[in-house]
Amino acid sequence: MSSSANMQVVRRVCEHWPWLSLEEFTELLSPDCVYKDMPFPDRVCTGPAAAHGKLSPLQDDWDINFEISSAAANAESVLIERVENFVSKTGAVEPFSLRCVGVFELADGKIKAWRDYWDKAEAEPLMRFMAMKTQRRAAAP
Amino acid sequence: MSSSANMQVVRRVCEHWPWLSLEEFTELLSPDCVYKDMPFPDRVCTGPAAAHGKLSPLQDDWDINFEISSAAANAESVLIERVENFVSKTGAVEPFSLRCVGVFELADGKIKAWRDYWDKAEAEPLMRFMAMKTQRRAAAP
Repeated sequence: MSSSANMQVVRRVCEHWPWLSLEEFTELLSPDCVYKDMPFPDRVCTGPAAAHGKLSPLQDDWDINFEISSAAANAESVLIERVENFVSKTGAVEPFSLRCVGVFELADGKIKAWRDYWDKAEAEPLMRFMAMKTQRRAAAP
Repeated sequence: MSSSANMQVVRRVCEHWPWLSLEEFTELLSPDCVYKDMPFPDRVCTGPAAAHGKLSPLQDDWDINFEISSAAANAESVLIERVENFVSKTGAVEPFSLRCVGVFELADGKIKAWRDYWDKAEAEPLMRFMAMKTQRRAAAP
């Protein structure tokens, strides 16, 4: 695929991931796509359903918007730097901005590898919120 | 500049930074180049001398080699994913590999902004070694 077609696929994921349906994930990611958050190398998602299952629930608790700051593509890959701005819908934790770079490898117009680089310290409010949610669930009758 | 000329400049930095002279840094980085390790946003280096002063001393204590895994360029920027393999020359701490992505903005064939994304946890042996070295220096008569 051309670099511009690859860029279009990756921008669609980077700018819309919270609201994409499973069908859309399946259209954009290859069946064996490996998606990895580099700070958590052991929690790899393989395939569109796993990626959708991990990312989609975030829209329940957060208003999220995106700014793309740098991006470059070629016939096999797209690298894209972005800021993801998170605001808790209930105000449970403070808003935060996560700067990250995604490295995407593509074949035949689909993403087959996706690696996100970011610093855990910047996403501390998200980690804290996740821990609160897990505790609340465990305490529920 | 063309994307291939930009890529050449950035690869030279990414694959050779420990051994580049101040003259070479001055050739590759603009006078006001801002270099930032994203996990340490407060420790910004501005200009070739500051970047050289920060990076060059690492070759005293470490054997370092590089693997470029993904890279893409356009007329204004280069994004490059690499693994930096560090081995302590004295065996003071264990070897480690640091995966990172560099985002480079260029103008007129020189790098004017350089942002490196990586996870602090992966570089823990380096941080430990730096702390040991600072302590040793403080304890010296």
